[in-house]
Amino acid sequence: MNLDFDLQRFRRLLELSSEQVLSLYGSLGERKVTHASGPQVIADRFSEPLPIEGREPEELLAKEVPFIFGHSTLNISPRFFAYVMSGGSQVGILAELLGAALNVNHAKWHLASAAAEIERAVIRWLSEFIGYRTGAGGALVSGGSEANLYCLRVARDEKAPGVREDGCRSARPLTLYASAETHSCINKSVEMLGIGSRHLRKIPVDSRFRVDVRKLEEHIAQDLKAGMQPFCIVGNAGTVNSGAVDDLDALADVASRYGLWFHVDGAYGAAAAAVDATSEMFRGLERADSIALDPHKWLQVPFEAGCALVRDWASIRNSFSYAAPYLRATSDNAERWDWMGHTFQLSRGFRALKVWMQFQVYGSRKLKAVIEENVSLMHRLGAEIDQARDFERMAPVPLSIVCFRYVPAQGPSLADDELDRLNDRILEECERRGEFFLTGTKLNGRTALRACLINHRTTEAETLGLLAHLRSLGEELTGVAGVRP
Amino acid sequence: MNLDFDLQRFRRLLELSSEQVLSLYGSLGERKVTHASGPQVIADRFSEPLPIEGREPEELLAKEVPFIFGHSTLNISPRFFAYVMSGGSQVGILAELLGAALNVNHAKWHLASAAAEIERAVIRWLSEFIGYRTGAGGALVSGGSEANLYCLRVARDEKAPGVREDGCRSARPLTLYASAETHSCINKSVEMLGIGSRHLRKIPVDSRFRVDVRKLEEHIAQDLKAGMQPFCIVGNAGTVNSGAVDDLDALADVASRYGLWFHVDGAYGAAAAAVDATSEMFRGLERADSIALDPHKWLQVPFEAGCALVRDWASIRNSFSYAAPYLRATSDNAERWDWMGHTFQLSRGFRALKVWMQFQVYGSRKLKAVIEENVSLMHRLGAEIDQARDFERMAPVPLSIVCFRYVPAQGPSLADDELDRLNDRILEECERRGEFFLTGTKLNGRTALRACLINHRTTEAETLGLLAHLRSLGEELTGVAGVRP
Repeated sequence: MNLDFDLQRFRRLLELSSEQVLSLYGSLGERKVTHASGPQVIADRFSEPLPIEGREPEELLAKEVPFIFGHSTLNISPRFFAYVMSGGSQVGILAELLGAALNVNHAKWHLASAAAEIERAVIRWLSEFIGYRTGAGGALVSGGSEANLYCLRVARDEKAPGVREDGCRSARPLTLYASAETHSCINKSVEMLGIGSRHLRKIPVDSRFRVDVRKLEEHIAQDLKAGMQPFCIVGNAGTVNSGAVDDLDALADVASRYGLWFHVDGAYGAAAAAVDATSEMFRGLERADSIALDPHKWLQVPFEAGCALVRDWASIRNSFSYAAPYLRATSDNAERWDWMGHTFQLSRGFRALKVWMQFQVYGSRKLKAVIEENVSLMHRLGAEIDQARDFERMAPVPLSIVCFRYVPAQGPSLADDELDRLNDRILEECERRGEFFLTGTKLNGRTALRACLINHRTTEAETLGLLAHLRSLGEELTGVAGVRP
Repeated sequence: MNLDFDLQRFRRLLELSSEQVLSLYGSLGERKVTHASGPQVIADRFSEPLPIEGREPEELLAKEVPFIFGHSTLNISPRFFAYVMSGGSQVGILAELLGAALNVNHAKWHLASAAAEIERAVIRWLSEFIGYRTGAGGALVSGGSEANLYCLRVARDEKAPGVREDGCRSARPLTLYASAETHSCINKSVEMLGIGSRHLRKIPVDSRFRVDVRKLEEHIAQDLKAGMQPFCIVGNAGTVNSGAVDDLDALADVASRYGLWFHVDGAYGAAAAAVDATSEMFRGLERADSIALDPHKWLQVPFEAGCALVRDWASIRNSFSYAAPYLRATSDNAERWDWMGHTFQLSRGFRALKVWMQFQVYGSRKLKAVIEENVSLMHRLGAEIDQARDFERMAPVPLSIVCFRYVPAQGPSLADDELDRLNDRILEECERRGEFFLTGTKLNGRTALRACLINHRTTEAETLGLLAHLRSLGEELTGVAGVRP
């Protein structure tokens, strides 16, 4: 029951699929970022029972793919500013095509020797790109959540010997420390690892949303006195809320003073350590014991491509190798490099190819230029907001996230609650219309419009266009909907 | 710094990439399954430092891709019988191309509404395909390891309320039960979850490599007496060693008697529950609380595509939702279905597309026919071995794995140790020559040649060809290398 098409038909199917891709990219400028169909429309479209007989793939491509493309939010669009999402790259698309065709499994060298070495190269390059140490270990994973989990797993196993066998049952509970602005995936990781979320200490931040290092150290001292086992500090290299970068050097000092693992969540921001304009902020990153870093964010690789970096390969094998302990410390240059001893996954696809091709085709120079331009555009947006009478910036702009709100310039001044409601409605209306897309957040309890840019396709035109669009929505809502009396 | 190519060049690059894919598939019959280059050759090829300037993608495709394709093991080949790996599908290749181009993030409905509903459809279909319950929840994940982790995570959180907050620190240690033939990813999951591998009880198997249910129940009773908290039984629906399927119905009875979660690892085998010839073996599967099942195995979807199925969505949200507890029990048909409350990952790619297109194009009928044919071919191989004077079968063949060894028909009979060495050398030599590829395992301490078939491209010709090839290697090695005196 060979499922293959004859080569001529397969060629035609590749052409038809490519046409769909080209038509998507050819119309990106005109397409809305969101679509207006409600949940029921989409659910109904995909409600059919398990197909028994197949359909002709030509018909499927012609009929279903345009619907799917038309009912997806286009983070590949230059007018997308929501969450923390990049536009992907066309080289990444080619890589996914080639990788799926080859369909290797990365688990062992003798299954995918080129892929094994390509992933090793990518780990070296990513480490070098952000100025992390030579000889660092790591692995490509699905994204930031898994990268943070991977690193905290290695930290746990190193600081609590025997935990793989015994579980998290030590007399002194393991505790770890991170700012209140830390991403929820750290919480989720701590739950996954059996450490328990109440052992994750959320430390207050300063006015720039950076962790208060003094309070963090006090909490460690308290916990030690109370019989806990502090084992790890998590620093932020770019929070998702506002892009805040903790004082990594100071955190490294504290970690070193207390003998703790120092992990940095740089899923969004760490790539900016590569760039002159922002590198200074990341001083201390090179002292981290582990770093989470997402190629599918600022490096413009398509989903999914996260990366966990760890100071050495031995720590990784200490967590993931299944060889008997006396065999775990194999050389880093073992004859045949088996990835299965360095990851949780066993079967693994060839995601290294898209990261490798990205660096090969664009080089670090162009990838850095994207980051630099994104930061500069968001600083420009921040400056526009500062000059505007009807917008108010709500946080510093260290990287490429701007948090702000619309504050009507005319009419009676609105209370914070009223401003929250107004800005929530602006967000809803913006999403409904689909010219631009951004999402909000809460800062100090207040609704913020939040524009995040990690997309190589966005220029000054879209950046200033976003502000003009939000202004017109604000004016329309306050004028028409009568927020003002 | 827009990284896009102009459309004409992008079209050309898609064509060039497609040509590489077509040339790979057009030459599959002639290509060796493995390659002969040593680790140093591959490592040297990919040892270059981080590229600063980029390369022309046309040059990269022309020069590097053939090298990569030529230095990969071809599990897409019909002559591949190693591990548990499928050949992928051409529809899956198209889906990966389309998905990478769209590059949506599945985390929230308003980011990828079509993708969100397509994944829900795929979960329904997979559940229906194997005869699991209507209304089951689940998620697509990277593969079997993550699917098992996901299910055991849900089990842990359901049976140990408070564990998300408190960690694995209950007075009575959590224990779980699985056969000695269980895949190592269960071990790895238990370590990840903070339960500790020594709390995973490995229960002996019978002569057919199925768990001894009586001993399993005895162990539970002992543990209860010793103050443990048994919480889960893991049944095997197709072990990786020999394809053994535990008595799932009996395990479900025990689980129900003791109030334990009943998880089934069907990463490899559960798909065979869909097929008349083998479905009887899986009686009791429908009683599982959760099932791990890999579309990238017997359903011929390219890597990575694993699936965790859980009896209901509420259990899943109990583990992964971050809404406040009083909000967790949202309806299964919530207006906007956000996947982020149902998975560990936040950013997620569109892997649902390839599973969905697979079912759409081939229908369940053809996918079942592949499974049926694979099972029948491996039974045929088993029968050939039983009739041969120079091969010895070492385990039953319930599904599509045959474990056997070469035993020279002539000359003095060899001791088990000598047979181990001889068969190890056959494996090495087979890999080196690359006409076929299979790997070995240990059964009752003895080396077995192990042929596993979950590939739609393999026919009787390759199946019988494998045996003839191994015979000629065995004869050559015993004749030339003088294993016999």
